[in-house]
Amino acid sequence: MNIHDLIRDLREPATTKIVLLVADGLGGLPLEPGGKTELESARTPHLDACVRDGVCGLSVPVLPGITPGSGPGHLGLFGYDPLQYRIGRGILEALGIHFEVGPRDVATRGNFCTVDGAGVITDRRAGRPTTERCVAMCQKLQKIRIEGVEVFVEPVREHRFVVVFRGDGLGDAVNDTDPQLTGHKPLPAKGADAASEKTARAVNDFVMQAAKILKDDAPTNMVTLRGFARYPKIGTMQEVYGLKPVAIAVYPMYKGLAQLVGMKVVEAGSSLDDQVKTMEKLWNDYDFFFLHYKYTDSTGEDGNFAAKVEMIERFDSVIPKVRALKPDVLIVTGDHSTPSKMKSHSCHPVPTVLVAKTCRTDPVTEFGESQCLRGGLGQFQAMYLLPMALAHAGRLGKFGA
Amino acid sequence: MNIHDLIRDLREPATTKIVLLVADGLGGLPLEPGGKTELESARTPHLDACVRDGVCGLSVPVLPGITPGSGPGHLGLFGYDPLQYRIGRGILEALGIHFEVGPRDVATRGNFCTVDGAGVITDRRAGRPTTERCVAMCQKLQKIRIEGVEVFVEPVREHRFVVVFRGDGLGDAVNDTDPQLTGHKPLPAKGADAASEKTARAVNDFVMQAAKILKDDAPTNMVTLRGFARYPKIGTMQEVYGLKPVAIAVYPMYKGLAQLVGMKVVEAGSSLDDQVKTMEKLWNDYDFFFLHYKYTDSTGEDGNFAAKVEMIERFDSVIPKVRALKPDVLIVTGDHSTPSKMKSHSCHPVPTVLVAKTCRTDPVTEFGESQCLRGGLGQFQAMYLLPMALAHAGRLGKFGA
Repeated sequence: MNIHDLIRDLREPATTKIVLLVADGLGGLPLEPGGKTELESARTPHLDACVRDGVCGLSVPVLPGITPGSGPGHLGLFGYDPLQYRIGRGILEALGIHFEVGPRDVATRGNFCTVDGAGVITDRRAGRPTTERCVAMCQKLQKIRIEGVEVFVEPVREHRFVVVFRGDGLGDAVNDTDPQLTGHKPLPAKGADAASEKTARAVNDFVMQAAKILKDDAPTNMVTLRGFARYPKIGTMQEVYGLKPVAIAVYPMYKGLAQLVGMKVVEAGSSLDDQVKTMEKLWNDYDFFFLHYKYTDSTGEDGNFAAKVEMIERFDSVIPKVRALKPDVLIVTGDHSTPSKMKSHSCHPVPTVLVAKTCRTDPVTEFGESQCLRGGLGQFQAMYLLPMALAHAGRLGKFGA
Repeated sequence: MNIHDLIRDLREPATTKIVLLVADGLGGLPLEPGGKTELESARTPHLDACVRDGVCGLSVPVLPGITPGSGPGHLGLFGYDPLQYRIGRGILEALGIHFEVGPRDVATRGNFCTVDGAGVITDRRAGRPTTERCVAMCQKLQKIRIEGVEVFVEPVREHRFVVVFRGDGLGDAVNDTDPQLTGHKPLPAKGADAASEKTARAVNDFVMQAAKILKDDAPTNMVTLRGFARYPKIGTMQEVYGLKPVAIAVYPMYKGLAQLVGMKVVEAGSSLDDQVKTMEKLWNDYDFFFLHYKYTDSTGEDGNFAAKVEMIERFDSVIPKVRALKPDVLIVTGDHSTPSKMKSHSCHPVPTVLVAKTCRTDPVTEFGESQCLRGGLGQFQAMYLLPMALAHAGRLGKFGA
């Protein structure tokens, strides 16, 4: 039986409230074997208090050994199996610029590139143009018209942009036109089925018009498109979990991911304090609050151990305000690990604490990777965190008599 | 989504090297409750050093409670779900005597048995003949000819031998001819489908000819056949994991299992020292090294606690030579537990250590069952060990954007 069907069967009406605080890339590594991680090095009195009141564990975002991107990492935390619900690159790029993708859309990631007189690609990134030039080139491409299909062209930055094809019956089984190598011409788009053939015709028409429009604009004189993707079919959190969820995020990508699962996305300001104030203001209007904090990830990606420690401490400082709202269930976790030692996402499981009145005692006294190893939640797949939260919030009935 | 498809998508070219040291039947039990296991009793300074540099856990070979044979135990460690990839007994027996099974073959395990004048079985093992007699009887059976099907008869030992039927379109859905009880005649072979019917006809012809040839050779005057099996369809480690793997094993069974997943099987001498020298010699030619050590299992099977301790200490002594090669990832584990107290394989999870530069700290200081319980890898399914190794070797990209 599908876990979502199980949840639909078991869920019960309730007025309890769940808060999910996601410190992006929270998990880390010690710089030297046997040393402390960023989280273990940080002074986190308020998170440590959560840990003593709650139950801890380590969240495996996808499967052991698999390093997730932000999409799969968050889908797991929202209660969706990231292996079942795949989000194509085109959709993620569109979400990342806060483009509202709909059910009739096929989204794709575009690159400006440079071609020579014979149409052969000499630079796949067109010498990394400025974002200003990217905006200007996209404005030119916005003039393209295709019969029966609406086209949206939106800049991302440098050589990157998004194209959305909107129409009836458009499939997304279309190959990338990017040959991935210089010295080759862009590939023609082909559809693997009738619906995708329709998309492919629109794509080839778009590329042909783009080539004409850009022909005197070297080095940005051609485009490639890849990661064709439709909006995934995904039950909303209302429909599956019976929750009324709100996303309090600053960055477009995370707003987009939240919107994908049916969360209300609100304007949340630009700082963590703004975000907490937003939560306070909306406290009576929702029962599930997703708050996304970016800087634990970005400092990890930068390889800046000390800065990540500082961002964790800043995150810790707002915990009392969240707890003052008295959520029935409070979860603090990350969507994946981003050890500053690796300057990238990693496959390491993520420290997690769940605070509720029904938590069993475990021996964890401080929030950190080594201590969470001994936590009562053990090592668990991220997709089971939300069912656990529902249970502790009294929102799931008994399975079977 | 299938994990192998996921790995195919995510894997990245790399020159890093992974060493998998398998001490067969490594896990054990204390002789008395509260006591130490064989591994905990052994003096293992070099494995303990690995543990302090790496991360530990307990490997569950198949599922909790399931005791694996050597086949499923190793398939898990090679990154294949042992419940999905079933290896029939006939194939295992053939691999065990290093018979090169091919895609047109159906292999089966044969037993010499004793029948009375009416053809009723009076001894299913023919009084356990000597292996010399087994060889002589097999030589007689090698004269059997069947139209359209090639037949190979190879002795194993005592009453056991292997028959391989080679031909086009042979199925393996054929019942055992061994009735499993004395007082019954051998059963005729029947095929469950057309291809297996073809095999069954060859089998019945073989058994009829064997009965004629052996009629004056009581007690080895008849044969039964069981465990009909074709070579399983299985992606190689090159194709699935992008590795160039080599097997450094002494016993034919393990060489055969390695060959099954596409490893290059090399002549590795007869001692552990020979095996390590082989690894040193081949270090530049491969990127995945599987070394199999048998004696931790055989001493366990013998019920000899002290001898198993000694074999573990001998195994420990070669660890420095392996580490001197500076593998990017070193794994030490077993394919299953073989507690000398039980004189058999068991379902207990297997102590495991993974050493790499990207390991998180855990509190394990000595290699043993109780300490591994607190290890950072937790208790995990063996089939996820290889994905974890690939991740720590920098051989897997990010899943999703």
